[in-house]
Amino acid sequence: MSLIKNLSEDAAKAALILAQLDEHLKNTVLLDMARSIREKAYEIQSANLIDLNRATADNVAPAMLDRLTLTPERIEAMAVGIETIAALPDPIGNERYIGKRPNGLSISKMRVPLGVVCMIYEARPNVTADAGALCFKSGNAVILRGGKEALTSSKVIATILQNVLTQYALPTALITVVPDPDRALLLELMQQRDYIDVIIPRGGEGLINFVTDNSRIPVIQHFKGVCHLYVDKDADLDNALALLLNGKTQRTGVCNALEALLVHQDIAAQFLPKVAKALAEYKVKINACTQAGGYFEHCTHMEENDFGQEYLDLEIAIRQVDSFDHAIQHIARFGSQHTEVICTENEVTAARFQRSVDASVVMVNASSRFSDGSELGLGAEIGIATTKLHAYGPMGLESLTAEKYLVSGTGQVRA
Amino acid sequence: MSLIKNLSEDAAKAALILAQLDEHLKNTVLLDMARSIREKAYEIQSANLIDLNRATADNVAPAMLDRLTLTPERIEAMAVGIETIAALPDPIGNERYIGKRPNGLSISKMRVPLGVVCMIYEARPNVTADAGALCFKSGNAVILRGGKEALTSSKVIATILQNVLTQYALPTALITVVPDPDRALLLELMQQRDYIDVIIPRGGEGLINFVTDNSRIPVIQHFKGVCHLYVDKDADLDNALALLLNGKTQRTGVCNALEALLVHQDIAAQFLPKVAKALAEYKVKINACTQAGGYFEHCTHMEENDFGQEYLDLEIAIRQVDSFDHAIQHIARFGSQHTEVICTENEVTAARFQRSVDASVVMVNASSRFSDGSELGLGAEIGIATTKLHAYGPMGLESLTAEKYLVSGTGQVRA
Repeated sequence: MSLIKNLSEDAAKAALILAQLDEHLKNTVLLDMARSIREKAYEIQSANLIDLNRATADNVAPAMLDRLTLTPERIEAMAVGIETIAALPDPIGNERYIGKRPNGLSISKMRVPLGVVCMIYEARPNVTADAGALCFKSGNAVILRGGKEALTSSKVIATILQNVLTQYALPTALITVVPDPDRALLLELMQQRDYIDVIIPRGGEGLINFVTDNSRIPVIQHFKGVCHLYVDKDADLDNALALLLNGKTQRTGVCNALEALLVHQDIAAQFLPKVAKALAEYKVKINACTQAGGYFEHCTHMEENDFGQEYLDLEIAIRQVDSFDHAIQHIARFGSQHTEVICTENEVTAARFQRSVDASVVMVNASSRFSDGSELGLGAEIGIATTKLHAYGPMGLESLTAEKYLVSGTGQVRA
Repeated sequence: MSLIKNLSEDAAKAALILAQLDEHLKNTVLLDMARSIREKAYEIQSANLIDLNRATADNVAPAMLDRLTLTPERIEAMAVGIETIAALPDPIGNERYIGKRPNGLSISKMRVPLGVVCMIYEARPNVTADAGALCFKSGNAVILRGGKEALTSSKVIATILQNVLTQYALPTALITVVPDPDRALLLELMQQRDYIDVIIPRGGEGLINFVTDNSRIPVIQHFKGVCHLYVDKDADLDNALALLLNGKTQRTGVCNALEALLVHQDIAAQFLPKVAKALAEYKVKINACTQAGGYFEHCTHMEENDFGQEYLDLEIAIRQVDSFDHAIQHIARFGSQHTEVICTENEVTAARFQRSVDASVVMVNASSRFSDGSELGLGAEIGIATTKLHAYGPMGLESLTAEKYLVSGTGQVRA
């Protein structure tokens, strides 16, 4: 039997054991994992140095080098992350009452783990600990297939977590790192439909498409984040400016950063000069429609078909819209179903926006940067889904579960 | 542009309009659809006759001929089904409050339609009306690709529903029948990831595997139903016998029929002679383990590896188990995650069974035949999912929806 089939089958068997553990024991194990990460911080950093040296020799991009680096602070953050997950309520076993049927059958639903979760990601060694802890708490075994750049770090982190599992006589297959980054093995992994229940890829659109095209297992997809801020005619313009600057400049390389500003024509003359001044201070590159462009000293002209880009940089698209409906139409066409924001003091307009816009997170008077599992109160996130099947938006513990029906009777039979 | 891409894109556009309709209007349209089905019953039957004549000439199996046949009673049942769906509460727009964050952001979730649902099924013309109505009520456009045997009937039913849509100035692309049963077109349909959100195949395991293997769109899977009844040592044996007979004999060709009986050794000597007598009356073929086999006049001997079959007929597997845990292990190995039943008067044992067994419906003292959307109070069902992603078990209106996050603030930005 192959390595991949073997480890997938072992994970599925281990998941059956984990599914029966109670919350208290799971939390005890998690707190020991956090403690162990702290105690072995030096060991983690040594392993990370091997990855960093190799990556430097291979001339990897500075952004990837940064994601790859585990400082003492980042290792401490991993430990705190696990403690946070331990403190979250356990969804498994939660029962909700549905109703009683006329024949006396009582119907309810109970949360159960999915089984085996497979994470496919790039050079982020911290995902090993985050995903390991989230999956453990939600009763799922996890198979971690990270990029080759972080493999030494990931293996050491996984070994630390596995040693804690062993102390509690739990199978190490609950947290498995695929030991070989070979692409043929990745392809084989994505065929293990009998053992793996879901694949969650984290990375660029190329990775997501590669996994979707090749997987026989359901994939939770996170495509790009083309997030808009629509400044309505009834907006508080100070709020609007603050939301714009926070969304566009607080962190640019992330999927919940703003990529476009839509401004209602009635307030354009009042608002856009302020926008021009503020964005110039942050050296944000402007791409604008004809009407909006007039307010900016330097800007690239945009035609209708040019919109919809994800810049991930100090760059933005700006458009003046004729009406609320025009804004909605623009978002429907160019949005990416990630996060959309309206700034308005009009409650009716706000409610219409939240109802009409098709995105996983629809905000009123709040920065798009809050579109994140921790910020929304999920405690931690395993990913963000921009398609609607199974999960939509930031995914916390509950998104790693399903509900089964419980039916209780007194001997009822069907007529 | 191709036929398939065209109709898929049209469905996606139509879905955006439907997503904004309110419940009252949707129900009015549905009631008109039911009325129109009744008024045009003769037209439907005439079309059905064409399908039946062709099927008879093609020597299709009697079971398929039966499924294909639309009697006046079955047409009336279609109309009543649509009325039932109209009377169900509309999940779309439902908002549930999640909580307030320390920074004052208010978080809730709102139900939204999935978008476009594609049904792939065999010779059941009634699916056209059922799925059409369920998808319409839940705000989804539907593409119906039924078997060639029922195509004339399906087209006529779809036209009747589309005419009602037209009366309300709604796009006919909300309910589309793929006009050509060509397999190449089916394959093309399963590639339309940009327009179709989910595929729900209904049919045998071969169809499900074919769709899963070839689809680039997420598939909700319904594999086989190998349902067990476990008669515990604390069972009421009269109840147990009634559940056994109802589960095995009331209807045999369905996925929620019983396929296996597990009997605790402590009550085997008391219970199995009654089972032997009762099943003999119904001429049920017996396959049994060594211990259980002794109680039956005629039976086929089963070894450990022989279990797990879906007979879909008057045939059953019977095993004596040593303990509750033995029963659980047997079900974990041979069950199909569809429906599992325990008969016991012991509430602790019942609760342990419901918690431990991994199946979409876990029952206590009730016939497996109740594992059905209507019987569980969903009003109607679009299918049964035996895998856990997105939906698990009988799927009603809610399973055709997702939830988006709503975030409301007063200008909060991220630090």
